Amino acid sequence: VEWDHLIEGETVTTALVVLAHHRPDSLTAHIAGLAARELASSGYQVDVLDLHREGFDPRMTVADQPDWGDREKAYSAEVEAHMKRLLAADLVVFAFPVYWQSVPAILKGWIDRVWNYGFAYGRSKPRLAGKRALWLGLAGATADDPITEGMHAFLSAQLNDGIAYYCGFQESRVALLTDAEDQPQTVTEDGVLHIGEAITGEARRAHYAEFDAKALAHVRAFTAAELVSA
Amino acid sequence: VEWDHLIEGETVTTALVVLAHHRPDSLTAHIAGLAARELASSGYQVDVLDLHREGFDPRMTVADQPDWGDREKAYSAEVEAHMKRLLAADLVVFAFPVYWQSVPAILKGWIDRVWNYGFAYGRSKPRLAGKRALWLGLAGATADDPITEGMHAFLSAQLNDGIAYYCGFQESRVALLTDAEDQPQTVTEDGVLHIGEAITGEARRAHYAEFDAKALAHVRAFTAAELVSA
Repeated sequence: VEWDHLIEGETVTTALVVLAHHRPDSLTAHIAGLAARELASSGYQVDVLDLHREGFDPRMTVADQPDWGDREKAYSAEVEAHMKRLLAADLVVFAFPVYWQSVPAILKGWIDRVWNYGFAYGRSKPRLAGKRALWLGLAGATADDPITEGMHAFLSAQLNDGIAYYCGFQESRVALLTDAEDQPQTVTEDGVLHIGEAITGEARRAHYAEFDAKALAHVRAFTAAELVSA
Repeated sequence: VEWDHLIEGETVTTALVVLAHHRPDSLTAHIAGLAARELASSGYQVDVLDLHREGFDPRMTVADQPDWGDREKAYSAEVEAHMKRLLAADLVVFAFPVYWQSVPAILKGWIDRVWNYGFAYGRSKPRLAGKRALWLGLAGATADDPITEGMHAFLSAQLNDGIAYYCGFQESRVALLTDAEDQPQTVTEDGVLHIGEAITGEARRAHYAEFDAKALAHVRAFTAAELVSA
């Protein structure tokens, strides 16, 4: 029984969890699942969009390129369906590995194709206004690597300012989840990536328990802020 | 006759032109062609990589994800072939439309999959060392829109510092080719995209002649710098 539909006058809050990883057994998929379960247990109606599993093609097409002369252009049926899911969401949680201080191509293409002209931007009354976004970016860099501060700032500029706020989102946060690999990554002084020894056994178990706790804390802080602002 | 192979002791300089647009009749494809012809007429051996036409899939796969425990990992045959083309190039010219102040998904994925661990980065003696890159990014924004300066800085940080220099390139330049649309785009003070009236007739012809000249000037300045540094 989906009880939340049965309470008269109660507004259901919907969360869209967007997963961008090619392996269902990845740490990224695990974190997306953790976030989805946390949101569901907090009363959100959760829609999980697994971009790879759903076969989303990130390459731009003629059907989905903007027509600058027609803000009302009907895009492809596939993209229109994705627009509906985004429109239905009060909050959007992204889970992705950080590639080149940015999102992977499949997520970039989801934004390229779906967050389109006339839908996501180009209106004085944005259709995505008031929504909230949490970007969970998993990185192999260690928390104390000097590179991570710049990476966080860079992701925030791209995803918060360049995308979410430009589209009228009310709030957007980037949580950079460092130490995602069991072989810690650091960049040496001369700019070369160095891969450390793999952690094993109990240390590895503790490492990932801490990683999960860190991710969950970000999701909880995000939903708590929702309750305050509502 | 490929005369440059016949001159004994002469080193052939190779340019890879990477095109990232879904329409062969796009302005981006036109500019890529212009750059390729200019390079060929300057004596470069030119390899044109049309990512869409060659059916490049930007989505990460298990075969092409890095193995942090094995820098010598053999990637997919498709990716290894792309690595060879990149390795053969002394300079790389990218032509792409700017989407969300970044490259389109297909180009992001070419970097995600091909510029991989052990090949493009992660070695104290980078295999791509000494190469030069020119990024020709086409944008609908007008040259005098306040947004363009930040866009150029942002693209430079991503593409020059975050990618090319990290991989040991000797030089990397971003040329932001504004005014790419015949309907000029500006962002209003409250952050909404505004689409201007389409230019037509002689004004349109002059506009695109100037656009071509601007793009060519960037290519020529780039190859001239090559001659000086050689």
